[in-house]
Amino acid sequence: MSIFNYFRTKRAPAASATTAKERLQVIVAHQRGQRNQPDYLPRMQQEILEVIRKYVPVDQEDVQVQVDDSDNCSVLELNVTLPG
Amino acid sequence: MSIFNYFRTKRAPAASATTAKERLQVIVAHQRGQRNQPDYLPRMQQEILEVIRKYVPVDQEDVQVQVDDSDNCSVLELNVTLPG
Repeated sequence: MSIFNYFRTKRAPAASATTAKERLQVIVAHQRGQRNQPDYLPRMQQEILEVIRKYVPVDQEDVQVQVDDSDNCSVLELNVTLPG
Repeated sequence: MSIFNYFRTKRAPAASATTAKERLQVIVAHQRGQRNQPDYLPRMQQEILEVIRKYVPVDQEDVQVQVDDSDNCSVLELNVTLPG
């Protein structure tokens, strides 16, 4: 299944008469070749957020951050609800 | 299914004796509230790549870019194969 299908299935229910909330989701997945490679996702996360803030005003409480770490793969997920 | 499961299922086959390639995948999904909202993903894409370049040396040919646009959702996928 390609990532695009993932987002198609995940989409919010059909936009009702009132406009649906605008959302932005950023995912960074880092698959390391060896185990001891540095994990720079936490620092990269903050800088990606600053890039997003150049385009849309985002308050910290509008950003949900999830990080999943396993043996050689880290996945960072930022969910941003944008001002409607 | 959460995005983390997506990446777990998608992972490369078990790393053989030689080290697996290091990869970075960045996905930005923008779900617009209304149809005519501006789509800033193309410009954001370049800036996110520049953030990544601060952490790892990345040549343009090591970056695959895929964009999927439908009625109110745009998904940008950057696949970066990092120097092994």
